[in-house]
Amino acid sequence: MRALVYNGPRDVSIQDRPDPKIEKPTDVIVRITTTNICGSDLHMYEGRTSVERGKVFGHENLGEVIEVGAAVERVRKGDRVCLPFNISCGCCENCERGYTAACLRANPGSVGAAYGYAEMGPYDGGQAEYLRVPYADFNCLALPEDAAEKENDYVMLSDIFPTGYHATELAGVQPGESVVIYGAGPVGLMAAYSAMIRGAYQVIVVDTQKDRLALAEQIGAIAVDDTEQRGVEQVLELTKGKGADRGCECVGYQCFNCKGHEVPNLTMNNLVKTVKATGSIGCVGVFMPQDPGGADELAKKGQIAFDFGEFWNKGLQLGTGQASVKKYNRHLMNLIHAGKATPSFLISHELPLEQAPEGYRNFDARKDGWTKVVLKPGR
Amino acid sequence: MRALVYNGPRDVSIQDRPDPKIEKPTDVIVRITTTNICGSDLHMYEGRTSVERGKVFGHENLGEVIEVGAAVERVRKGDRVCLPFNISCGCCENCERGYTAACLRANPGSVGAAYGYAEMGPYDGGQAEYLRVPYADFNCLALPEDAAEKENDYVMLSDIFPTGYHATELAGVQPGESVVIYGAGPVGLMAAYSAMIRGAYQVIVVDTQKDRLALAEQIGAIAVDDTEQRGVEQVLELTKGKGADRGCECVGYQCFNCKGHEVPNLTMNNLVKTVKATGSIGCVGVFMPQDPGGADELAKKGQIAFDFGEFWNKGLQLGTGQASVKKYNRHLMNLIHAGKATPSFLISHELPLEQAPEGYRNFDARKDGWTKVVLKPGR
Amino acid sequence: MRALVYNGPRDVSIQDRPDPKIEKPTDVIVRITTTNICGSDLHMYEGRTSVERGKVFGHENLGEVIEVGAAVERVRKGDRVCLPFNISCGCCENCERGYTAACLRANPGSVGAAYGYAEMGPYDGGQAEYLRVPYADFNCLALPEDAAEKENDYVMLSDIFPTGYHATELAGVQPGESVVIYGAGPVGLMAAYSAMIRGAYQVIVVDTQKDRLALAEQIGAIAVDDTEQRGVEQVLELTKGKGADRGCECVGYQCFNCKGHEVPNLTMNNLVKTVKATGSIGCVGVFMPQDPGGADELAKKGQIAFDFGEFWNKGLQLGTGQASVKKYNRHLMNLIHAGKATPSFLISHELPLEQAPEGYRNFDARKDGWTKVVLKPGR
Amino acid sequence: MRALVYNGPRDVSIQDRPDPKIEKPTDVIVRITTTNICGSDLHMYEGRTSVERGKVFGHENLGEVIEVGAAVERVRKGDRVCLPFNISCGCCENCERGYTAACLRANPGSVGAAYGYAEMGPYDGGQAEYLRVPYADFNCLALPEDAAEKENDYVMLSDIFPTGYHATELAGVQPGESVVIYGAGPVGLMAAYSAMIRGAYQVIVVDTQKDRLALAEQIGAIAVDDTEQRGVEQVLELTKGKGADRGCECVGYQCFNCKGHEVPNLTMNNLVKTVKATGSIGCVGVFMPQDPGGADELAKKGQIAFDFGEFWNKGLQLGTGQASVKKYNRHLMNLIHAGKATPSFLISHELPLEQAPEGYRNFDARKDGWTKVVLKPGR
Repeated sequence: MRALVYNGPRDVSIQDRPDPKIEKPTDVIVRITTTNICGSDLHMYEGRTSVERGKVFGHENLGEVIEVGAAVERVRKGDRVCLPFNISCGCCENCERGYTAACLRANPGSVGAAYGYAEMGPYDGGQAEYLRVPYADFNCLALPEDAAEKENDYVMLSDIFPTGYHATELAGVQPGESVVIYGAGPVGLMAAYSAMIRGAYQVIVVDTQKDRLALAEQIGAIAVDDTEQRGVEQVLELTKGKGADRGCECVGYQCFNCKGHEVPNLTMNNLVKTVKATGSIGCVGVFMPQDPGGADELAKKGQIAFDFGEFWNKGLQLGTGQASVKKYNRHLMNLIHAGKATPSFLISHELPLEQAPEGYRNFDARKDGWTKVVLKPGR
Repeated sequence: MRALVYNGPRDVSIQDRPDPKIEKPTDVIVRITTTNICGSDLHMYEGRTSVERGKVFGHENLGEVIEVGAAVERVRKGDRVCLPFNISCGCCENCERGYTAACLRANPGSVGAAYGYAEMGPYDGGQAEYLRVPYADFNCLALPEDAAEKENDYVMLSDIFPTGYHATELAGVQPGESVVIYGAGPVGLMAAYSAMIRGAYQVIVVDTQKDRLALAEQIGAIAVDDTEQRGVEQVLELTKGKGADRGCECVGYQCFNCKGHEVPNLTMNNLVKTVKATGSIGCVGVFMPQDPGGADELAKKGQIAFDFGEFWNKGLQLGTGQASVKKYNRHLMNLIHAGKATPSFLISHELPLEQAPEGYRNFDARKDGWTKVVLKPGR
Repeated sequence: MRALVYNGPRDVSIQDRPDPKIEKPTDVIVRITTTNICGSDLHMYEGRTSVERGKVFGHENLGEVIEVGAAVERVRKGDRVCLPFNISCGCCENCERGYTAACLRANPGSVGAAYGYAEMGPYDGGQAEYLRVPYADFNCLALPEDAAEKENDYVMLSDIFPTGYHATELAGVQPGESVVIYGAGPVGLMAAYSAMIRGAYQVIVVDTQKDRLALAEQIGAIAVDDTEQRGVEQVLELTKGKGADRGCECVGYQCFNCKGHEVPNLTMNNLVKTVKATGSIGCVGVFMPQDPGGADELAKKGQIAFDFGEFWNKGLQLGTGQASVKKYNRHLMNLIHAGKATPSFLISHELPLEQAPEGYRNFDARKDGWTKVVLKPGR
Repeated sequence: MRALVYNGPRDVSIQDRPDPKIEKPTDVIVRITTTNICGSDLHMYEGRTSVERGKVFGHENLGEVIEVGAAVERVRKGDRVCLPFNISCGCCENCERGYTAACLRANPGSVGAAYGYAEMGPYDGGQAEYLRVPYADFNCLALPEDAAEKENDYVMLSDIFPTGYHATELAGVQPGESVVIYGAGPVGLMAAYSAMIRGAYQVIVVDTQKDRLALAEQIGAIAVDDTEQRGVEQVLELTKGKGADRGCECVGYQCFNCKGHEVPNLTMNNLVKTVKATGSIGCVGVFMPQDPGGADELAKKGQIAFDFGEFWNKGLQLGTGQASVKKYNRHLMNLIHAGKATPSFLISHELPLEQAPEGYRNFDARKDGWTKVVLKPGR
């Protein structure tokens, strides 16, 4: 089959690879029809992770089941399925409580597994024609009859829609509340979209990229352009000096300030300033335990200089980490099926698999208008 | 009346002061019969806050109502009452949701008020013969018929029992879980005691002071002596390498490492190491937004070098801040009344008010055996 | 002042009554500018309660503060305020936990108080020019600067918007779920509206009155006409045979079946049939502990023949009772202020106070098109 | 193998049956070492269900894994395991949310499956030498190293300890609250025990059987003897007229009043009388959708004459149904392992399997002192 392979920093290419096979009776093989490039793929692409050369990338996958293992019962050949980016066993201590992002068995010796990702287990990704899906009865989300028609919406259930929603869940967004979101990338936009769905009365999105802020406004959010570093001030004005009820971090450690320097504590400390006392924050932007390429001594150790005194003084709460996609994907699927959510609005480019390297290059350059790239392996 | 007055760093004395009067129709006057010295009084005592000279200290107060304002209905003359350390109006946006620690009206221009405390409003404390209690119908907890007999238990409802309980609530401790608590001072011991009440199967308390660790063991906790900085390792062993389900920070910014240096990020980063992935942390130890006397540049700005990458990678959650005492004091009172909780176990010294300065001196020196000092103004 | 007075079954009139006065230092007097007739007023109007003759009705009130008691601090003369129908003291055991509908002090000897209502205390209602508001600092919701302009929206915060929302809260409606609502009266419509705000993907409203079902459709719900008693069947079809995730009862004991007989267990048993296993139900329709005018022996004793076996077998959950309005009114106010909710859509008639008796007559007759009557005293 | 077989009403015997075999790759075979007779087995024993003759009973099972299917990974030969009474697939819509008691796949066409139980699927029970366990990786709880030593404690994790705990979870019991429990059978006693673990300050148990009430007192509960029908009155006295904060129903539809008549609505209506306004109730006693042998017309239809008016007026909440054992068994196991819970205290008789029929006879007769019968197949 054809697949996107990592050759080294900023070097990916489409290559021939052996087709995946059923390895365990609980596996299925899926023919991928849509797979996205994710912002977190760029951490690997840029060489900021330990990912090995030869890895097939791709953890936002949707397709058709073409082969099922002997122990697979619920999923059937021909099912159109969307796959959570987390691979989870379904029966460990964490999975049984719904924490599928922290599966203890799919990536032995570590916590949590994923397709085609650094330090998330030996699994290849789905930016390819075919994908092996472990623990398939547990992991596959079977899609309804409009699966093909709404494929570009449903594929967002693999990661960014649940991840954006997770930010609002960790932040505890309630109907009638205000929310401030740092980051208008795909995850930040999905967090804003989720905050609307949850009935927030005011959703403020802070970023510096105008094309993304325009999308935020398009879905009804208030866009705050932080280019002049006046974002904090503006959020406080918009919330009458009190700060927002809830906040979401959707940027992560590779946060650039207005001068183009990487400042990993920028968004978290801005959230401390702009979320009200008694409020809470959900952080889904990626932070790394070590970052050898980090900007300073703290960053290299995976630390940030955190405004903890003010955080404590305000009595804030904070939830973090990767989304357990299965916790949310069925409910969000219902909204898409009913026509109440169309997360495909943020897709800017739809490319055949062979053009994926071009997609990486432009998305990594944050080139104007490249918000979200969707790949179509079969075309 | 006689009252304990702050004269400057490490200088308090008992002086004559005018008796408090009803100032608003919602006030009552309480004759104080028991009032404690709190660990957080020591921050002021040591000159590490902005508290003004002349302030009467004391926010852990219990006594008898001797006069009531014209609008007071629920509280009556003769009632024995325990007073939450937070002063709250009962009707602002935060109070109405139960966040009495973040009252917006009792300390105008700021968030949260308290008796006799730095930057918590113009209120004198209760280490005195009499105390004015604002918004009395809302703030007074009327005690049951065994009030006098169990006065040393009930007085703990003013602060440290609810504060320790708050740590376990923020951490989300459930029956059948393990909990690690950093700090075996009065609040840490109350957190351990609360974790037992909540049905934890394993409660681990980490500290370096042997007298306090002995108290932890006395109530059924596992004591870990961190003197040799092997605490983290031992907690991991006790939890089979996974870390505890939940963690509590009960030390705050004035945390000393084994060499006697103040290391404000020590306990939080140890919690990140010793709480399991998917777990959560409650932090009730005091941290300050600014700390001009802090040990280094970060500390002066109220920042800590926080292991945020590992915190995020583990998907941890964190709740912080002062306890809203009213959220817990009635339920904890029920447990004392029924004989199921006797928080007075940690009292080491009971002194007449006139000897309060001696109490401060010894408690501040962390003198061996000085765990908790209770003052008796009327004696 | 002029006020609507109850003279006996189906007999109300506008009469002269003494202006209310400040009776306690915590009172304020409000000049009523908008006040609604509520479906629950009809229980009294029809003589199905113990309400005394001479009572002024009206518990959905909004107006301007014209006088404040000596202990009132937060509310000021000139404030535009909306008043929760529950009168609550703010400091009893139930109020302090947010259960203002179950205040233990405002109606001594009973639980819960309200304006102008049977067995809810000695308080007159607001279908009048002026109203005395007890515990004003706690009870008044101060409205924002667009108070006058959106008066017909904000007045719904006194009862039916929070009550409809309460149904969805008791039912635990989550984003991406389906909800079935029995009753398309004002409260049922507000429940449907609230379910939308909370992100339900499917909201089904069951009733027999076509004008009300049309309003349900207007706000995006699916209307099911139960005139032919095929409602249960249709709900099951719409939910693929499983039943809805959540259900709301918004009818109460005076439920009429298709033959015009009162059948108090009809809606609850239909909910048991049409809510899925593991689901939950919120019941805000009024049921009475005794009902001497009830249709049969069970009804007279306040009992229903409840399908408890099936309820248990499905593992259903059920929450009931009056809304604690303060729990919701601020957040819902935010939505109105931001233009995200306009509950006035259900108003069918706006009448001067003098025409209130005509309003009662037509609303009680469920006359076609009389969905909701708003009164304007002062005009 | 030898197994207990149902021959018809009040007729069970030990017979030879073929050993169970691995039927699917996800199965394991367990050699049963301890298995209990459950109160709910008596419904079948007495002929009050549709259970077919020839069924092997037994859903409270513990033993050793002796054979594993080809797809089983987590469970290993030699593991000591305790088996939840619910059989669940682990991957359906309900299982993935933790509702394993409502599995949609293990008993196709119905909701929920169990071993050896009427209308819960084609599965034989474990009152036998061997048992086939479906979806074994999901269903088996692997026990710690003291499994053999504490077998009589751990076996309670299969049903009654989680079921009793579930009653307190549905009721929302919080530390510092009072709880009233109707029924002092094994489940009621486990509910009382669980309420203690959760930190209730007062646990009241109502029953008429003196031996069971004595056990309730032994674990620290207050026993109320309802033989003279003064139970309600006494509970109200014990709770100062207010009623308990929370209530648990642990009796079910086969509830006998003091005259020996079956009165299915007795306990639920007593709970409505004795739980305070704003309180909540958990009901785990079994109620049946139809009961052809029921005492009256309502009972036959699975209905009860429920005091719904008073229930609503008090704003009560109610949760019902079978426990999803996996939600609780790991945490409760931790408590047993740490020596903080010893549910075996309620065992009255330990019998070899061959004497099971005698156990049924005496337990069914509620013979004095026959609280709980444990069977030991291998002996």
